[in-house]
Amino acid sequence: MPRKKKIEETTDGIFKEEARSNIKIIPLGGLEQIGMNMTAIEYNDSIVVIDCGLSFPDDGMFGIDCVIPDITFLKENKEKIKGFVITHGHEDHIGALAYVLPEINVPLYATKLTMGIIEGKLEEHSLLDTVKRKVMRFGQSVHLGDFRIEFITTNHSIAGAAALAIHTPEGIIFHTGDFKVDYTPLYGDAINLTRFGELGKKGVLAVMCDSTNVLRPGFTPSERTVAETFEKIFSENTKSRIIIATFASNVDRVQMIINTAKEHGRKVVVEGRSMVNIISVAIKLGYLEIPDGTLISIDEINNYTDDQLVLITTGSQGESMAALSRMAASIHRKVTIKPGDTIVFSSTPIPGNEKAVTNVINELYTLGANVIVEDTHVSGHACQEEIKLIYSLLKPKYAIPVHGEFRHLMEHAKLAESLGIEKAFVMESGDVLSLNADEASIVEKVPAGSLLVDGLGIGDVGNIVLRDRQNLAENGIIIVVLTLEKYTNTILAGPDIVTRGFVYVRESENLIERAKGKIMNDLLDLLDQGNADWGKIKMVIKDSLGEYIWKKMRRSPMILPIIMEVD
Amino acid sequence: MPRKKKIEETTDGIFKEEARSNIKIIPLGGLEQIGMNMTAIEYNDSIVVIDCGLSFPDDGMFGIDCVIPDITFLKENKEKIKGFVITHGHEDHIGALAYVLPEINVPLYATKLTMGIIEGKLEEHSLLDTVKRKVMRFGQSVHLGDFRIEFITTNHSIAGAAALAIHTPEGIIFHTGDFKVDYTPLYGDAINLTRFGELGKKGVLAVMCDSTNVLRPGFTPSERTVAETFEKIFSENTKSRIIIATFASNVDRVQMIINTAKEHGRKVVVEGRSMVNIISVAIKLGYLEIPDGTLISIDEINNYTDDQLVLITTGSQGESMAALSRMAASIHRKVTIKPGDTIVFSSTPIPGNEKAVTNVINELYTLGANVIVEDTHVSGHACQEEIKLIYSLLKPKYAIPVHGEFRHLMEHAKLAESLGIEKAFVMESGDVLSLNADEASIVEKVPAGSLLVDGLGIGDVGNIVLRDRQNLAENGIIIVVLTLEKYTNTILAGPDIVTRGFVYVRESENLIERAKGKIMNDLLDLLDQGNADWGKIKMVIKDSLGEYIWKKMRRSPMILPIIMEVD
Repeated sequence: MPRKKKIEETTDGIFKEEARSNIKIIPLGGLEQIGMNMTAIEYNDSIVVIDCGLSFPDDGMFGIDCVIPDITFLKENKEKIKGFVITHGHEDHIGALAYVLPEINVPLYATKLTMGIIEGKLEEHSLLDTVKRKVMRFGQSVHLGDFRIEFITTNHSIAGAAALAIHTPEGIIFHTGDFKVDYTPLYGDAINLTRFGELGKKGVLAVMCDSTNVLRPGFTPSERTVAETFEKIFSENTKSRIIIATFASNVDRVQMIINTAKEHGRKVVVEGRSMVNIISVAIKLGYLEIPDGTLISIDEINNYTDDQLVLITTGSQGESMAALSRMAASIHRKVTIKPGDTIVFSSTPIPGNEKAVTNVINELYTLGANVIVEDTHVSGHACQEEIKLIYSLLKPKYAIPVHGEFRHLMEHAKLAESLGIEKAFVMESGDVLSLNADEASIVEKVPAGSLLVDGLGIGDVGNIVLRDRQNLAENGIIIVVLTLEKYTNTILAGPDIVTRGFVYVRESENLIERAKGKIMNDLLDLLDQGNADWGKIKMVIKDSLGEYIWKKMRRSPMILPIIMEVD
Repeated sequence: MPRKKKIEETTDGIFKEEARSNIKIIPLGGLEQIGMNMTAIEYNDSIVVIDCGLSFPDDGMFGIDCVIPDITFLKENKEKIKGFVITHGHEDHIGALAYVLPEINVPLYATKLTMGIIEGKLEEHSLLDTVKRKVMRFGQSVHLGDFRIEFITTNHSIAGAAALAIHTPEGIIFHTGDFKVDYTPLYGDAINLTRFGELGKKGVLAVMCDSTNVLRPGFTPSERTVAETFEKIFSENTKSRIIIATFASNVDRVQMIINTAKEHGRKVVVEGRSMVNIISVAIKLGYLEIPDGTLISIDEINNYTDDQLVLITTGSQGESMAALSRMAASIHRKVTIKPGDTIVFSSTPIPGNEKAVTNVINELYTLGANVIVEDTHVSGHACQEEIKLIYSLLKPKYAIPVHGEFRHLMEHAKLAESLGIEKAFVMESGDVLSLNADEASIVEKVPAGSLLVDGLGIGDVGNIVLRDRQNLAENGIIIVVLTLEKYTNTILAGPDIVTRGFVYVRESENLIERAKGKIMNDLLDLLDQGNADWGKIKMVIKDSLGEYIWKKMRRSPMILPIIMEVD
C-alpha cells in the first residue's frame, strides 16, 4: 500500500491534520527475561496483541501463584482488538491467556503445537468452547483489521516457534519472537533466513528482537551438539539406569532422547505432570514420533533391568514438587534413586533457581548417583552474532529490543545502533512508541503493570497483604484477646495470648505468662482512667507487649489485639 | 615422638588393650560451601577445635538471622577442650564464636587480622574481657594438650589466612583452611609451599583440604590480574565517578583500589557499616596503608568533582540493606546514582544470591550507570591443579575433603585417590574418624547439627514454628474469636473474624460476612446437641470456614479459632 503524502506546512506555521496515521507499539507485559510478554500494536481502529504471558513470583511475593499483565489498556480499547497472535508455546508467552480471555474474548492465532498447548490450558479453565482459534502455517498470513500478520519459521527451544512480520500501512513491523539461528536443527526446518532477507529488501520499519543472550559473544550452538553429548552419555553408561531432566516443552530434545534410547535398546518412561501433558499433545499433533514399543508406563519399570531404562522427567529447575526433586528427596512413590544411577540435567538453571538446582544435585550425590551437567544443553536464544545477522538481513530503520532484563535491552540498543540502525528504543511497560516511515518517538504512557494471582483471585493480593505476609513469615504473630463488658469496660475474660510462628519452647510460656501480667497491669491503669475507647485499649496492648517482647527477646512479632464485647 | 608399638595378638585371639590411642577427627559444622565450619580434633584428654563459623539461613528459614553449629558434643567434653584455633576471619569460620564462647570459654588462637576481626565481634557481645586470646605469627606453634599447632602462611581472599599443621603423637594432621596458591600476591607473602614440602617429607597422616573449586580445572588466577583490570577501568573512565562494591573483608582488594585511586589522583570514600568496621581494624593492625589525604568522609563528597572520587562500598552480593543496594534503589541518604557513574562489582555472586545481584545491576542500569562485572574478581579458593600441588607436597596417607557441597567433597575424594592417596573420607557432620599411623575408619557418630538464631534466642525456633511461618507467609491467617458463657456454652459475643496476610478488598468483606453466617449456623447446630467441648467447637469452626474459603477462593489460610469464656 503506497503511503499517503504528508500535508505541507501551512503559511501560519501549523501542520494541518494529516490524512495518514501513526503506528503505535505498546509493550504491556514486563520486559523481564522470564517475564510476561505482551505487546499491543495499534493503527487507527485496529489493535493486535502479540503474546500474552505470565511470570513467576519473586522471592518477596509470598503465596503468589503467578503474575500476569495488567490489562486496563486492553479493556479500555476492547472494541479495537482484532486478536492475539502468539509466537510460541512457552508460559511467558501464553500463560496469561486463560486469565485475560474471559475479559477480552478475541480470536487466537498460533502455529499448531503452540495452539495445542494453549488448548490444554483453555480446557483446564473451561474456555475451550468460548474462544475462537485459528492454527497458522508458516508462510501463511492473516488479515486483522489494518494489519496483515505473516508467520515465519524460526528456531527455539520449543517446536513451532514463529517470528511475525506485521504488515501495516506505514511499513513492516517485525517481531522475532524468542529465537536462535540453528542451521542444523535435529527436526523441522531451519530459520527461514531467506524470508528475512526478502522482507529486508522490501523495507522493514522496525524490528522487535529477542535480547536474552545479547551479552554473549558468538553463536549459540546447534541442538545437534546436544545429541552428540547424549550419544556419548548413552555409550559410556551402558550398565546404569539413565534419568534425564529437561524442560517439558522442549519437544525436539525429548524426541532426540527417545531416538537415542531406541538406538541403545532402552525403553522410555515419561514422568512428571507437565512432561506427560505436553508430550501427549506433541504426539497427538505429530510433533513427536515414538517408535512402537519404546514408551512404557512408570508402573512397568520393575519388569526391566537398569540398562534397559531411560526416564525423562520434570524437575530440571530444582522445583520442589517436580518429579526429579521428589526422587532426590526419596519421596517419589515409584522411583528410588540408587547408587550407579546416571542422572542428566539437560538444562541450565533459570536465574534465581541456581541454589535449588544445586540442592537437588547434592541430594542425588548423597544417594550415590552419578550426575552429569556438562554439555547437556544449549540455549534457545540468539547470541550477538546471530542478532547481528538478523539486523543485517532485515535492515530496519528502528530497533526495539525486547525479552531481556533492562541491562540486556540497553546493551542490545547499543549493539543495534553500532550496526547503523537509525535509532533503538529501550521501552518500559506502558510506553507508547508512535512511528511512521519518517519518524518515531515515545509519546505517552498508558496504564501497565502486573497483577498477582493467588488461588482464584486476580489482583486481590495487594501491597498491604504482602507486607503482612512478610512480617508474619519473619516474626510470627501474637494475638491478644480480651472480652469486655459493654458500657462498663470491665474485663470479663482474658487477656489471653495465642502465638503462631513465634517461639515454641517451655521457657517462652513463662515469658508469655509474665507478658499477660504486664498487659493486665497496663490495661487496668488505662481502664481506671475511665475514658478508654477500643483504639486506646488496642494501642496499650500493642505497646505494652511489643516493648516487653523486644526487651526480653529482641524480637518484634506482629501483635494483633482483638476485643470482644458482651452486654 | 616415636609411636608406641602395637601389642601382638594374644593366643585367645583377642587384641589386648593398646597403650597407644587413636586420633579422632570430628566435623561438627555443616560442610556446606557457605556453611559453618567447625572441626574437633581429639586425642586422649585433649581436644582442639578448628574454626567456629556460622551460616546464613536458607530460603525456607523465615525470620532466622543465622545458623550456628550444635555444640552438644563440645559441652559434653568441655573439660578436654584446650582452645579454638582459627584459620581466618571470614564469617563461616568465626561467626559462631560469640554464641559458643559463653558456653565454652577456652582460649582463642589466630593470626593478627583474624583476631582483630574476632575482637570486634566479642566486643559487640561484651565478651572481650572474659575470653583469653593469643595472636599467632606465621611459623609459630602453640602447645595445646597433646597437640602442637603450627600456623603456616597461605593465600586467600582475606589477609592473614593460615593453614594449620596439627602435630599429634600419631602423626601430623594438616588443615589447609580456605586457600589458593598465589605466587604473586599484591601484598604479604605467597603461600609457604616450602613448609608444605618439609612436612610432607617428615610424613603427614591426613590432610583436610578446601574443596570449594574442586570442580574447576586449572589454576585460580592471581590477585594481580584484578589489579590490571582496575588499572584499565581507571584509565578508561577518567571523567566519571567510580563506585566499587566488594567484600568488606578482602583487605588486599581494598588496598589495591586505594593505591589505584591514589595513582589516578582520586579521593576514596568508604561506605557501608561492615566495610567501615573491617577497614578500621585493618588500618589499626597495619594491614592497610592509607596514603595521607586519600581517605575522605562521605560527607565531603560534594567538595569534589566526579573525576576526583572513588567509593568503596558493601552490597556486592545484592544484600537488600547494603549501601550499594540502597543507592540502586535511590534510598541512600548521601549518594545518588547518576548517568555516567561507573559501577564495578568486584565479586562473584555467592550461590543463591544471583537474582539479587542481577536486580541491583538492572536498577543501576535504569539510573543510567555503566556497570562493569567482567574480570573484576578472582576466587580465593584453589582449583584442581592447586589441590593436586598441595597433595603432591604433603603426600598424606589419608585425605578428608572439607569446605564444599556434598558433590564437591565426592569429586575431591575421587581426585585425591587418583593421586595415589590411600583413602579419602567424605564425612558428614558428627561422623567420628578414628585414625592412627596404620589405619583409619569412621567409628561412630556424635550429636551434631545446627541451631537457628532468631533475635536473642538460640535454638528456640524449631520446625513447628518454621512450618507455621511458611504457612503464614503463603496463605495468611484468619482468626475466629468467640466468647462463650461458662457451663451453658451460650454464645455471648462473636464469632468475629480478623485476617492478616489474606486478602484485602471490598469484595472479600462480603465473603467474610457470609463466612460468619456459615460458622454461626454450624456452631448453633453443634451447641444444640449439647455435648460440645472446646475441641469440638474449634474443629467445627476450622472445618466450616476452611471448606467455605476453599470453595469460594481456592485458598487455604491458617485458621485459628480462639474461644473465651465468661462466667
